[in-house]
Amino acid sequence: MTGSPRRPELGQPHPRLSINQATLKRTSLPDALRLTAQAGLAAIGLWREPVAEVGLTAAVRLLGDSGLRLSSYCRGGFFTDPEGPARRRALDDNRRAIEETAALAQAGAAGSQAVLVLVVGGLPAGSRDLAGARQRVGQALAELVPEAAAAGVRLAVEPLHPMYASDRAVVSTLGQALDLARPFDPAVVGVTIDTFHLWWDADLPTQLARAGREGRLAAYQVCDWRTPLPPDVLLARHYPGDGVIDFGPLTRAVLATGYAGDVEVEIFNAEIWADRPERVLRRTVDSFERAVAPHLIDPAQVGSMP
Amino acid sequence: MTGSPRRPELGQPHPRLSINQATLKRTSLPDALRLTAQAGLAAIGLWREPVAEVGLTAAVRLLGDSGLRLSSYCRGGFFTDPEGPARRRALDDNRRAIEETAALAQAGAAGSQAVLVLVVGGLPAGSRDLAGARQRVGQALAELVPEAAAAGVRLAVEPLHPMYASDRAVVSTLGQALDLARPFDPAVVGVTIDTFHLWWDADLPTQLARAGREGRLAAYQVCDWRTPLPPDVLLARHYPGDGVIDFGPLTRAVLATGYAGDVEVEIFNAEIWADRPERVLRRTVDSFERAVAPHLIDPAQVGSMP
Repeated sequence: MTGSPRRPELGQPHPRLSINQATLKRTSLPDALRLTAQAGLAAIGLWREPVAEVGLTAAVRLLGDSGLRLSSYCRGGFFTDPEGPARRRALDDNRRAIEETAALAQAGAAGSQAVLVLVVGGLPAGSRDLAGARQRVGQALAELVPEAAAAGVRLAVEPLHPMYASDRAVVSTLGQALDLARPFDPAVVGVTIDTFHLWWDADLPTQLARAGREGRLAAYQVCDWRTPLPPDVLLARHYPGDGVIDFGPLTRAVLATGYAGDVEVEIFNAEIWADRPERVLRRTVDSFERAVAPHLIDPAQVGSMP
Repeated sequence: MTGSPRRPELGQPHPRLSINQATLKRTSLPDALRLTAQAGLAAIGLWREPVAEVGLTAAVRLLGDSGLRLSSYCRGGFFTDPEGPARRRALDDNRRAIEETAALAQAGAAGSQAVLVLVVGGLPAGSRDLAGARQRVGQALAELVPEAAAAGVRLAVEPLHPMYASDRAVVSTLGQALDLARPFDPAVVGVTIDTFHLWWDADLPTQLARAGREGRLAAYQVCDWRTPLPPDVLLARHYPGDGVIDFGPLTRAVLATGYAGDVEVEIFNAEIWADRPERVLRRTVDSFERAVAPHLIDPAQVGSMP
């Protein structure tokens, strides 16, 4: 049956699997690109710091040479400060991130997503005003939207787990992220879904359906949740399947939104970072194949499967 | 102006302040009662383990002799297991907790609250079925409600921070807790609000107003959130005012529900537990006076204040 979707051969990466470079934290950009391509993946999500290490021009060339798609660029945001020099610096930095996203997405293989993931920031030092901080996120988006639109970049607001609400992201749920995105063109402002951050939310199915109706889903990231949490809760993520998250309903709900992009595995975990990158890539491919890939079947095409 | 509410004298505990015994983790029940009364507090929230240490009969006598009100009893719940011996054991244990709550509330001073706080439990071992676990919480409530009603005890479902969703409580928001309570008489099933668990939730004001309309607020607990979280995230709580929670709007919203009961300070924190109980009581009184008490003024009576 020519043209019908095929599951990849055993051991071959799923065609929609992307590795987020954070999963290969200790690997330089050139090595990450080379090893990811060698492992047979077709896409990668990049981070600003390793790009800055080699410089944008070199990064653009390296990504182009790798033959990989860019699935997302991490990250902008951190713009909850009140008006003043710190806020201006943050917004200028986001402007640079927008330009970098555009340049990299252009250099990546066909199907690259010019998506800048936004972690919005926590409470400013000394502040207890969550509502005010959230309002300033909306104002920052309003300021950046014209430049993102001009650059062809989509800003993707990422709700983070509520345990990061004070110091990382005052946006904790998909519902909040969608509320923030609402005033803007969905082609310019979308949302990032990460299973680690959102799996606990009973309202998630409703909000995923809403994300679909409103055309907001810009990036889908997967990793797993397991307790006890490690001493540093920033490093609490696991390979899909190694924890308690049920990837089936979540992934099917993501597909039902119409999201047709790459699916990133993004893991912050000290043990995984200490592992050899070749092994991390292999385990990423295998865990994705078992926990996520079985649900990555377009519901409209199930009938035509052999 | 006789009869108008008065702020307590400096150094005197606020009349609605209760200390939850968890804040005095290393102190026996007899010592906790004696020191709490000596510190001038009028109420205490008790825990089952220290009550079991002395036995219920002795605990009832000790509480009666102390002259303190019981503000709540911690804790029942942990009934997310599927049908089987483990679930039966959990439900039987909750039946005993209901009886203990009734006995203690009867022994406490006038104004004691026969409130059993329920931490519902996490995912059963090996399960990824959050929705199923939540459903079984509702079934457990249905089973316990007749016995709670007969004993004159109010079951108070406590939503816990989403970072405990997998191993402590599959109920993470006030909205979920209210949904679970809905089928039952509000005199028998209510909810517990703890600032530490809920402060991040943008939907909290809406759900607090709903809790008021539906007459569900059974207990109000305060402590503060601060990062970085300690290695054991169960011990991440702080004295009110030492973190980022804005107790003003929260406390006023709680009062607006009509809640007229005690306000418990419940802190799990290794450093505070290592401190002398007399000092913990003094710091509890002082921090409450600064961070919470200024907002504990019945809005209907503000006009009659001197």
